Amino acid sequence: MDVLERAKEIEALGNKVIHFEIGEPDLPTPKIICDEAIEAIRLGDTKYTSSLGIPELREAIAEDYREKYGISIPPDRVVITSGSSPALFLSMLSLLERGDEVIITDPHYSCYPQIIQIAGGVAKRVRIYEEEGFQINIDNIKKTVSKKTKAIMINTPSNPTGVVLEPNVMKEISELGFCIISDEIYHGLVYEGKEHTIYEFTDKAFSVNGFSKLYSMTGWRLGYFVVPDDFIRPVQKLQQNLFISPNPFVQRAGIAAIKKAKREANEMVKIFSERRKKMIKGLRSLGFKIRSEPKGAFYVFVNAKGLNDRSKDLAFDMLEKSHVAVTPGIDFGYGGEGYLRFSYTTSIDDIEEGIKRLSEYMKKGNIQPLNDTYQNK
Amino acid sequence: MDVLERAKEIEALGNKVIHFEIGEPDLPTPKIICDEAIEAIRLGDTKYTSSLGIPELREAIAEDYREKYGISIPPDRVVITSGSSPALFLSMLSLLERGDEVIITDPHYSCYPQIIQIAGGVAKRVRIYEEEGFQINIDNIKKTVSKKTKAIMINTPSNPTGVVLEPNVMKEISELGFCIISDEIYHGLVYEGKEHTIYEFTDKAFSVNGFSKLYSMTGWRLGYFVVPDDFIRPVQKLQQNLFISPNPFVQRAGIAAIKKAKREANEMVKIFSERRKKMIKGLRSLGFKIRSEPKGAFYVFVNAKGLNDRSKDLAFDMLEKSHVAVTPGIDFGYGGEGYLRFSYTTSIDDIEEGIKRLSEYMKKGNIQPLNDTYQNK
Repeated sequence: MDVLERAKEIEALGNKVIHFEIGEPDLPTPKIICDEAIEAIRLGDTKYTSSLGIPELREAIAEDYREKYGISIPPDRVVITSGSSPALFLSMLSLLERGDEVIITDPHYSCYPQIIQIAGGVAKRVRIYEEEGFQINIDNIKKTVSKKTKAIMINTPSNPTGVVLEPNVMKEISELGFCIISDEIYHGLVYEGKEHTIYEFTDKAFSVNGFSKLYSMTGWRLGYFVVPDDFIRPVQKLQQNLFISPNPFVQRAGIAAIKKAKREANEMVKIFSERRKKMIKGLRSLGFKIRSEPKGAFYVFVNAKGLNDRSKDLAFDMLEKSHVAVTPGIDFGYGGEGYLRFSYTTSIDDIEEGIKRLSEYMKKGNIQPLNDTYQNK
Repeated sequence: MDVLERAKEIEALGNKVIHFEIGEPDLPTPKIICDEAIEAIRLGDTKYTSSLGIPELREAIAEDYREKYGISIPPDRVVITSGSSPALFLSMLSLLERGDEVIITDPHYSCYPQIIQIAGGVAKRVRIYEEEGFQINIDNIKKTVSKKTKAIMINTPSNPTGVVLEPNVMKEISELGFCIISDEIYHGLVYEGKEHTIYEFTDKAFSVNGFSKLYSMTGWRLGYFVVPDDFIRPVQKLQQNLFISPNPFVQRAGIAAIKKAKREANEMVKIFSERRKKMIKGLRSLGFKIRSEPKGAFYVFVNAKGLNDRSKDLAFDMLEKSHVAVTPGIDFGYGGEGYLRFSYTTSIDDIEEGIKRLSEYMKKGNIQPLNDTYQNK
């Protein structure tokens, strides 16, 4: 956030900043989705809906699960929310009693600990390591489990690492018997292999997803989650009290996204796929070691300890001297310190320009190309 | 909720139900507001905004405070939310520590106790009485104050009573020195006299409002609240973590509402004003005593103890036998037991038809017209 703010100040002075810090697709929402919302507004579809969402959208999502993962979810268990953040929050609120522990990875999406805390829980962090491809090491989970453990939270593909969890890892975690909260918001944005939903491994889970990333609908605030059968009613009560209902014409747009915008979504995935290659190649040309290429989301999380152990100092130095904005790894927890997150939600031209600037930045600063010595520092 | 569900079942069998139970304007959102949203979607205004909302909307709201109440609020203190419910929740979350008490009236809007509880607080109820015009009796507030009291919550015009708080009552409450959370969502829907915002009396307050009622924008999910200066940053952090940002094109629609839809809002107020007269007259013709006419919102809250002390039984009996749906007073707390809430969010014709049916219902059930004996039961 601080980086983005400073970047905007630099831009206000007339400079071009290359944005590798933004976790939001730059591509426009497909027209076919916009048209559906416009039509719904015109038809007066502007009143409260059922607190759980429009049945047609819930059915479309259930059908999507069948198509994508080959599993059957009753539409009753699909709950529509105003974005995936409220879905995460409602999962925690409905599940946690005061003091319950939720295991999360470190690094992790910045908001997880706060969401857990606001819901009355305590976030317990399990380090994940570059050397292990940022997969979750089940032994470390087991060491962190306590009598207070209520849930384990996973995120695949992951922000900030871009890593897709291996199915055997998801299976092992599921077999521990705890409730799993699976943040699947980057599903669909996978460029090699295939992502898995938690429901392929256990029913004792909440899967959280939304339309923001795959359909480039961030501002629309449309998310959803699938809840265990006995959580439908508690979640409904929470939604009624805190949010009343999601937006009707935005829900209509969601139906159009699933039913009519598959082709548009695939085209966007292709664009991200090209950018990903360009970004990884560029970062490697700067000397960054990328041990295992991230296969999903739109992030590359690189070890920059060779440049500076303190990622925030480094990010600000890069921004001031080269006008390239990146997110410091420390924003994602202590386990992210020394890393930088490069987001490829920007054009191929900007990726090239950004890499060029960083190359000059390293030359001017008399910073040697990185090598394994640095990496192991 | 149960009443509405049963009403829908009855309708599904081909019957016409008269809906006096719905707390949502039946009128369409004014076209000029819809057009602005459509234009914004067309222009691609579909990305995250600042977590506090679009500056132009925050400024328009501040300007609205100046025009309506003659008071100056810095736009910095205006926070946009996805509906007024999240604004209420964020007020509570940012203010309360675990176990803090919030004083609310009884009867009250159904969701208040839950919102307070989810935010970690405890709702303490203060009865308000028909005999006192459903105004708040400051002596009863004083009796309920404890060491744990953190805030007093008010709602003017009120759901379910339709009563506009007297300015001297608001002044007295403010002078107690506690933080006031003032739910002002029905502001603008006042048919006699004038409503007051809490900021006319104290700065130690959150005022919560939105576009749902006055502009008939319930489904849009657009609300806002004004926060004390030292709460801007805490509220922003909560919003970032839980909601990221409100919807951009819906915010554009909000700007249009304030700047361009005053005339349309006034026309809707006139319509509600006519319906209110019709409803009050009709209820009186049935024998209901309405001691002081409700002057705001779109509710009449009547004492029906002469028909049945148990408001839920009565509401269901009326629904089954006359196909008129009303909300039982018990839904608004024990202080509402024995009352019924009649909402006039329906046409003049339906109001006439509903009153006619209830007259027959009372005749058939051999229920005598109500009189003061019943009222005092």
